[in-house]
Amino acid sequence: MTNYVPTTPPVSVRKRTHLVADREALMRIFIRPESDAARMTLLKYMDQILFGLHDFLTRHVGVTQEISLKELSERFVGSTIGRHPEKKLADVITDLIEDIAPHAVNVASPYFVGHMTSALPFFMVHLKTIVAALNQNVIKLETSKVVSVIEKQVLAKIHRLIFQESEAFYQEHVQNPQTSLGCFIEDGTLANITALWVARNALLTAKDHFAGIETEGVSAAYQAHGIERLVVLVSRLGHYSLKKACGVLGIGNRNVIPIEVDAQNRMDMHCLRQNIDELHDSSKKNRILAIVGIAGATETGSVDPLGRLAAICAEHRIHFHVDAAWGGPTLMSEKYRHLLAGIEQADSVTIDGHKQFYMPMTCGMVYFKNPSLLDAIEYHAGYVNRPGSVDLGRKSLSGSREASSLILDSTLKIMGTQGYALLIEHGIEIARQFAVEIESRPLFELITRPELNILTYRLFPPEIRSRLQLAATEETVAIYDQINAINRKVQQLQREAGKSFVSRTTLRVHQYPGQDTVVFRCVIMNPMTTLDVLCEILDEQEAIWHRIANEE
Amino acid sequence: MTNYVPTTPPVSVRKRTHLVADREALMRIFIRPESDAARMTLLKYMDQILFGLHDFLTRHVGVTQEISLKELSERFVGSTIGRHPEKKLADVITDLIEDIAPHAVNVASPYFVGHMTSALPFFMVHLKTIVAALNQNVIKLETSKVVSVIEKQVLAKIHRLIFQESEAFYQEHVQNPQTSLGCFIEDGTLANITALWVARNALLTAKDHFAGIETEGVSAAYQAHGIERLVVLVSRLGHYSLKKACGVLGIGNRNVIPIEVDAQNRMDMHCLRQNIDELHDSSKKNRILAIVGIAGATETGSVDPLGRLAAICAEHRIHFHVDAAWGGPTLMSEKYRHLLAGIEQADSVTIDGHKQFYMPMTCGMVYFKNPSLLDAIEYHAGYVNRPGSVDLGRKSLSGSREASSLILDSTLKIMGTQGYALLIEHGIEIARQFAVEIESRPLFELITRPELNILTYRLFPPEIRSRLQLAATEETVAIYDQINAINRKVQQLQREAGKSFVSRTTLRVHQYPGQDTVVFRCVIMNPMTTLDVLCEILDEQEAIWHRIANEE
Repeated sequence: MTNYVPTTPPVSVRKRTHLVADREALMRIFIRPESDAARMTLLKYMDQILFGLHDFLTRHVGVTQEISLKELSERFVGSTIGRHPEKKLADVITDLIEDIAPHAVNVASPYFVGHMTSALPFFMVHLKTIVAALNQNVIKLETSKVVSVIEKQVLAKIHRLIFQESEAFYQEHVQNPQTSLGCFIEDGTLANITALWVARNALLTAKDHFAGIETEGVSAAYQAHGIERLVVLVSRLGHYSLKKACGVLGIGNRNVIPIEVDAQNRMDMHCLRQNIDELHDSSKKNRILAIVGIAGATETGSVDPLGRLAAICAEHRIHFHVDAAWGGPTLMSEKYRHLLAGIEQADSVTIDGHKQFYMPMTCGMVYFKNPSLLDAIEYHAGYVNRPGSVDLGRKSLSGSREASSLILDSTLKIMGTQGYALLIEHGIEIARQFAVEIESRPLFELITRPELNILTYRLFPPEIRSRLQLAATEETVAIYDQINAINRKVQQLQREAGKSFVSRTTLRVHQYPGQDTVVFRCVIMNPMTTLDVLCEILDEQEAIWHRIANEE
Repeated sequence: MTNYVPTTPPVSVRKRTHLVADREALMRIFIRPESDAARMTLLKYMDQILFGLHDFLTRHVGVTQEISLKELSERFVGSTIGRHPEKKLADVITDLIEDIAPHAVNVASPYFVGHMTSALPFFMVHLKTIVAALNQNVIKLETSKVVSVIEKQVLAKIHRLIFQESEAFYQEHVQNPQTSLGCFIEDGTLANITALWVARNALLTAKDHFAGIETEGVSAAYQAHGIERLVVLVSRLGHYSLKKACGVLGIGNRNVIPIEVDAQNRMDMHCLRQNIDELHDSSKKNRILAIVGIAGATETGSVDPLGRLAAICAEHRIHFHVDAAWGGPTLMSEKYRHLLAGIEQADSVTIDGHKQFYMPMTCGMVYFKNPSLLDAIEYHAGYVNRPGSVDLGRKSLSGSREASSLILDSTLKIMGTQGYALLIEHGIEIARQFAVEIESRPLFELITRPELNILTYRLFPPEIRSRLQLAATEETVAIYDQINAINRKVQQLQREAGKSFVSRTTLRVHQYPGQDTVVFRCVIMNPMTTLDVLCEILDEQEAIWHRIANEE
């Protein structure tokens, strides 16, 4: 038997003047440090990460330090990987905390209310650390074992939260290797793609001499099923990932048909019915792949009338997908779960863990009412995902996956539905109070009233308001442009000042038909974001506006 | 100004007999603990995670504890989320370490040589923790800022490792918001899908009245471009994600044409040319979407003749994709990078960070030689990914993403190419020594010789070998079945014993034409996996075989 000969001889006796990667150094980084001193060093790093970083984020209330993107990017232009190690772990950690973090975005700040990313419960960092330390790959049982079993259980828990099937149903499916209640994937975009992929395959299935769309492709499938065009119907507030999904899946993204919304930004049922009728009446052989209901629109937080959508889908035997990436966890609040009524009739539902489950980046999930539907995308290989196995990678768009389910499972135990309910209710109620505050200030106009915890508003100074009222039709366009420019400018200046962050988007709203309306978009999910904080943000916007107005 | 009124009154005075989620408790989990005691508690948890878990993994040399899957899954059948918190963080962590980890798979064991998951340098856990604590979302600049800039730099570094363009090229593109050298995504499967998605859109582009395949779909694209069938050519050792990609993309997975391999398990150039000629000659209007070269086949570690493939692709103007999910980091070894010669001529390359970059689960990447090619999949939305912005989510299959690039960036600084080279060289050289050892033992047969650090072999006892030599043709099938059954059985018993893990797969190999050959598959990436360890694994397999043989 040959003994192992190290590739490089030990150099422990050599005095090092610079960092060298050698076999000895390499083994050290893979072996648990034996000495107490080494142990303490590694813990000290964790102390720095947990508290040094956190202290920094707390000290700097602001969202980000003032530095232009150009200036910042000029620091990161080298494109060669050094042959020798450049830095020790200690220096890398110090750099990350002292030099990098200040130029990252403090999404944990209560003043960061612009996007669907926020502060996390501190234990999320611990849970993510455990997942990294275990380094399981959930694609297959052989690299995850108990984690695959736990994942199936968590999927059942969230499935039950959504669909509320019977105890007997869950007893049958929770650990059933043949069926799947859903799957985890990187994010909501991929979850939506998965849902429509499944719907596509389930619709254009094998028949006669046709082996199914997954095998033969879109073109053959259209011929076999006598289709010319496959479409997806969603409110025009639908997430852009639905267009991306139809592009990827070969259906064509122009076949996502945007349906008009009502005054509450919910899908207009009349328009929907009209569209369905037109598609059916058309001389073209159209088929509706899916109707998508939104539970928490990205821009307005609005919720489509899910129950009525479910009824229409049932009537026409159309796949009903609900994009609850944002709003899904509202189901945990007894007070507000009624807002999502009808979701239990969906065929598939997307929910993001890194949004209102407050998990670290990232965790997408997609659930299916029918536990056999995911069979439509099943793949096998000799070395992984064998037929009949418990390998979760058999029915998934992705391959290798980290054990995010372990974080969600732990978190549900620590928080209970009640803990989440408090967070959800805080957001909804503060958003309502904020809407009242906005309406009480003459400089502002509330654009979309919060249904969940998202609202939009804009600066609409009284002098411009009066001008608009008195303007001739041909003058209004210029005034609209001016208002939009003001809002764009104020949002930019506030962002650049770095103290707080409200995002902006452009909406078409009921009250200004046919007009692009630039708005501030406010997402309230951080429990530290109180009405006082939001009032400070308004104060700052007012101050910026007065400064601009005086300069002109 | 209204003051914030807590939803639930404080209950600090009430003596708690069970866990309750209230506003006060909730705020505590979002606020940095002020007291030294609380700080020490959080650090103690990290100590448990870093060392308690690691100690466990080190103590149990085995891969997993003996417990049947059925038994294990019976413990995880409840499907209701509790209303009240069930457990405190401390208990959750203790449970994870003492109760869950023992039933996970000890992928860090030197005896775990069955899959492409292995021990990590300990600092990876620290780096993952930092990423979680910062919780940036790389989809857009507004939730990542400096991380987007760093990601662009890391993409340039790996792009340069692969394509070795000029310094001027990288100066132009490293921080150019208009161009993209690649993108990060969850894993290699999604990276391969991205590559073929880009190739599909770049091929079936807008013309005349046709707006492009992404917009109009596959069926319209085939009509506009006069195509009946789009195919992808890859050796029959190609990863199953390529079939999945063609299924998802609407091309049809039966249009992935498997090309025969030569005696070294590399794509047979003669067969490839023959296939191309047949496709071109066929009465059907065929078009080749891409030829895929493998740099490190999943089952055999073999590398296709990339330079010759590049030449054929250039000749026929076909997109050349290289699946280097496994083998890519070999480029960091000056000694062995020649094995991947030709990769610099690829149009796109997949590499996994969680494989031979030794990053925690998961990190897929895809690179494009032409920095404008990713434009073929660009998407915008009003609230994110604005045209012309630096938002990295503009050109990506996924939406929200964690900052994996920060881990890779840090790791490259800590390791240097030399550090990685030592790991890669260890794997290749131990694999070669192991092949010699296998060939020296009469009970075994080497099936595929290692080109990188993967080899396959099987038990082939001399008595069966002689029987096979003397057998009449009609008897051979039964003997082959018997050998396969033996290897399946031994692999299973060794796995269940829990001390070590070698995977198994079924190959068609040169030396046994037309026969399914069940083999042990050995992946050597753990620097602790010495030849001694591998000999122990062989000893155990011999012992198991003798036990079985005696029982019969």
